[in-house]
Amino acid sequence: MAELITVDDPGDPRLRDYTDLTDVELRRRREPAEGLFIAEGEKVIRRALSAGYPLRSLLLSAKWAEAMRDLLATLNAPVYVVDPGLAERVTGYHVHRGALASLHRKPLPTAGELLADARRVAVMEAVNDHTNIGAVFRSAAALGMDAVLLSPDCADPLYRRSVKVSMGAVFSVPYARLDAWPRGLDAVRAAGFELLALTPDEKAVTLDEAAPHRLERVALMLGAEGTGLSRRALAAAGTWVRIPMAHGVDSLNVGAAAAVAFYAVASGRPVG
Amino acid sequence: MAELITVDDPGDPRLRDYTDLTDVELRRRREPAEGLFIAEGEKVIRRALSAGYPLRSLLLSAKWAEAMRDLLATLNAPVYVVDPGLAERVTGYHVHRGALASLHRKPLPTAGELLADARRVAVMEAVNDHTNIGAVFRSAAALGMDAVLLSPDCADPLYRRSVKVSMGAVFSVPYARLDAWPRGLDAVRAAGFELLALTPDEKAVTLDEAAPHRLERVALMLGAEGTGLSRRALAAAGTWVRIPMAHGVDSLNVGAAAAVAFYAVASGRPVG
Repeated sequence: MAELITVDDPGDPRLRDYTDLTDVELRRRREPAEGLFIAEGEKVIRRALSAGYPLRSLLLSAKWAEAMRDLLATLNAPVYVVDPGLAERVTGYHVHRGALASLHRKPLPTAGELLADARRVAVMEAVNDHTNIGAVFRSAAALGMDAVLLSPDCADPLYRRSVKVSMGAVFSVPYARLDAWPRGLDAVRAAGFELLALTPDEKAVTLDEAAPHRLERVALMLGAEGTGLSRRALAAAGTWVRIPMAHGVDSLNVGAAAAVAFYAVASGRPVG
Repeated sequence: MAELITVDDPGDPRLRDYTDLTDVELRRRREPAEGLFIAEGEKVIRRALSAGYPLRSLLLSAKWAEAMRDLLATLNAPVYVVDPGLAERVTGYHVHRGALASLHRKPLPTAGELLADARRVAVMEAVNDHTNIGAVFRSAAALGMDAVLLSPDCADPLYRRSVKVSMGAVFSVPYARLDAWPRGLDAVRAAGFELLALTPDEKAVTLDEAAPHRLERVALMLGAEGTGLSRRALAAAGTWVRIPMAHGVDSLNVGAAAAVAFYAVASGRPVG
């Protein structure tokens, strides 16, 4: 049984993992440096624990400490019980979901380890928006992608907003970072993957024509909202594919484009 | 040429269209009652004007008044030039995009008018999240849906957040509200549309099996995030369709699900 500790001083050093959660720049530096990340809401916290992330502590309102009693009974970490006003003073925002967890990061697998077992991989370049990263992971999990590879300048999938938008899919879809970009793609190709680059360029074949569900091993490359894949990344791809757009529309949201492409990769095949 | 009016009093009654923009409840009542809506950012404002929404006024920083000079030359409405601090005091938030427009609403077409010319229609039930409404419109425009029908309890596509997330697609995809729900669906069926309900229910056929791109006229029904379509709406549908999900994932985000379904409807056909 976890130890329940009522805290009423917002300056209590035991709450340090949860301070200034709305300061994105600060948290982006601090969390990887300190080897922690934050999960929010009961469902997502349970998913993080199920995925084997070691718990550092929980910060709960009294109401949620009661609601999550069955879970607390299985834990071995401090549980700080605070009133909602204090939670807001510490974190900087009103914690709607009433429950925050601080968890230890785990070492990431290497790209090589992921590629050995995968057949359908999403590769993201410079996707630095936490909402978009989370949305892509959620769709990747739902549509049966095996793994995600990230260029060095992609945002952190374990940042609080990414975790939340993904509904915890960042815990279930394994991911790795490519250290060299786009050179790291050579290893993907060498592992037997066909590299498909998603682009609105008219020279690209349509997703229908590319028929990615027929390929044995597919790596589907996605760029950031607005800018898309870089020229260097496009040059490294084997095939350019596009989603046909209605007249006058420049692009889909990257989350929507990813969902469509993942669906096309999975199409007609049993998933899961 | 529009008249440029420098305003330095946040209480100036001419700025009333822009007050309390962060008070969602207030604005949700006020905007339809007063027949106005707000568009944000140069690109989206241009799209609203191109789509024929009459301009009430603009609220710009001096920088944007300069950047948008070509547009202002064509307008016949007051342009209020304010400094960013005053814009924030009036609206309640920091206006990142530096340009707001207040526009008149237009009368909505009836469902019957839309159905006469359409072949691919999205029908939303109780989607009351402005971000999701906007995302669905953006994908509907990009993937060539002809029109959108809304149940009476869907959120307003012209609310500022919906407009922004849609990138202005709410101006280009015509939409109507069904007054009776789900009874209004009878008219959709009577107009020759096959009603497909998107649901995770295992009794549904897969989207692949349903092959909606082969149907002459398709109405694709989508429910809200989390709850999905109501039992009454499901009962009114001709066919239940599902997107196959990987093991253990409960659902896609409604925007992602809509994009996948719209793609399947358009699949293999030229769009636009």
